[in-house]
Amino acid sequence: MAASQTVWPPLSAAKLHLARRLLTAKGRDVEGAFLAEGPQVVREALGFGAVAFVIVAEGRTPPAKSLAVDAALAGLPVFMATDAQMAQITDTVRGQGVVAVCRRLEVGLKDLEGKLFLVLDEVRDPGNVGTLIRTADAFGVGGVIATTGTAEIHAPKVVRASVGSVFHLPVAQGVAFEDAVSWARGQGLALLGADAHGDPLTGVTGLWRPTVWVVGNEAHGVPDAHLRMLDSTVSVPMWGRAESLNVATAAAICLWESAVAQARSVEG
Amino acid sequence: MAASQTVWPPLSAAKLHLARRLLTAKGRDVEGAFLAEGPQVVREALGFGAVAFVIVAEGRTPPAKSLAVDAALAGLPVFMATDAQMAQITDTVRGQGVVAVCRRLEVGLKDLEGKLFLVLDEVRDPGNVGTLIRTADAFGVGGVIATTGTAEIHAPKVVRASVGSVFHLPVAQGVAFEDAVSWARGQGLALLGADAHGDPLTGVTGLWRPTVWVVGNEAHGVPDAHLRMLDSTVSVPMWGRAESLNVATAAAICLWESAVAQARSVEG
Repeated sequence: MAASQTVWPPLSAAKLHLARRLLTAKGRDVEGAFLAEGPQVVREALGFGAVAFVIVAEGRTPPAKSLAVDAALAGLPVFMATDAQMAQITDTVRGQGVVAVCRRLEVGLKDLEGKLFLVLDEVRDPGNVGTLIRTADAFGVGGVIATTGTAEIHAPKVVRASVGSVFHLPVAQGVAFEDAVSWARGQGLALLGADAHGDPLTGVTGLWRPTVWVVGNEAHGVPDAHLRMLDSTVSVPMWGRAESLNVATAAAICLWESAVAQARSVEG
Repeated sequence: MAASQTVWPPLSAAKLHLARRLLTAKGRDVEGAFLAEGPQVVREALGFGAVAFVIVAEGRTPPAKSLAVDAALAGLPVFMATDAQMAQITDTVRGQGVVAVCRRLEVGLKDLEGKLFLVLDEVRDPGNVGTLIRTADAFGVGGVIATTGTAEIHAPKVVRASVGSVFHLPVAQGVAFEDAVSWARGQGLALLGADAHGDPLTGVTGLWRPTVWVVGNEAHGVPDAHLRMLDSTVSVPMWGRAESLNVATAAAICLWESAVAQARSVEG
């Protein structure tokens, strides 16, 4: 096959420098760009149309190779990196052979549409934020709102943990909590907060209604002042000895219950 | 308070060397011990009675300090580490001030008791394994079975992600999949496997029965040969564009549905 003989131009020092800058929040902000790593995430980035150029490792794997060909066919520049260059721009083993430099996703509250939403209120761990976006995507969430203080969605760990879901659904970030609440009120959404002291989820009715769920920081949860601005607070019942659930797990259960109730309400 | 003046003996080079060996799977195996990091996890380890000795950082935080006092009152040796020593035995910032050297938890299938169980079939990521154990603990799972090929539960990342739940419920590890199935059959448990091509969870009945859920590897899921040994395979319905759920998220939804059905069956 022709593809296996393709030789891409080498990654220049300037482009490597740009990609390395995207490892820091400041660099991403200044450049208005971020990195997508690995075949699955790069494929989603290409589908979304966010890619500026693609970097493929010289010891590249078949999926990385075929993605580079796809990118070139779409008219995008592709460059070949040495292993030493690749090691400078990825945490994982050679970025699984392929990295895309993507333009920042600029999303505001006005871009969110649907009947189920998720607010991340100061969720700090990038792995949790990525997993939350992936779960929201799976359960048909129309958009995610990340408040100021939540891990930046363009951080490499978030993009990786989302397994490409950052390209599937709009994520508005840097939103003040009060603005998220006003927006939800304007949309006529029910506002539910996940909190260890809330009403047990198993007794909550009306989950079929258009809803926004609010989940909070790993250590402190949603601040009381924020919970008071919501319609009600809901806890995920536990039967064992764990003190709490991981925030991504708790959110998954809440979104699941809403998604099932909404699907049944449509069927009924 | 007397505690604030307590001066612990310095951590010896030999004990530091032992603790460092526990960062590797081989070292843990040879020494029959592992590390628990951070106040919350160390508290659970002390409660369980698995601690051999405690290491507290010289720039220690109040929770770490009070745990060191608790350990000493329980008759356990406590040693003070310099920041440079602490950095050698923890990935996180000074291990949040406190690390316990614990004896390995030796658990077999015969130690598992309850009506809800979870099999981890070659789940590789330590963060996922720890989160799965934490979730299992929250939803009243009687025990977790980790097959050969699943991340070792004594690895620091697993223990940390479990937030101490490794000390709450028995985890039998290094179990052959066939042995887990035989054990479950012997217990009269329903055997359900989570798989993208299974029957939708929303249509599954009989979740109130004593059940063992099987979840698989992050990339490949549960092998077909293993799925064929189960009663049925079940998928978590998705409404969005994500290709799959994180294994810890999928397992959380399955365990949640079983736990709720079992709780309702008891109430009814």
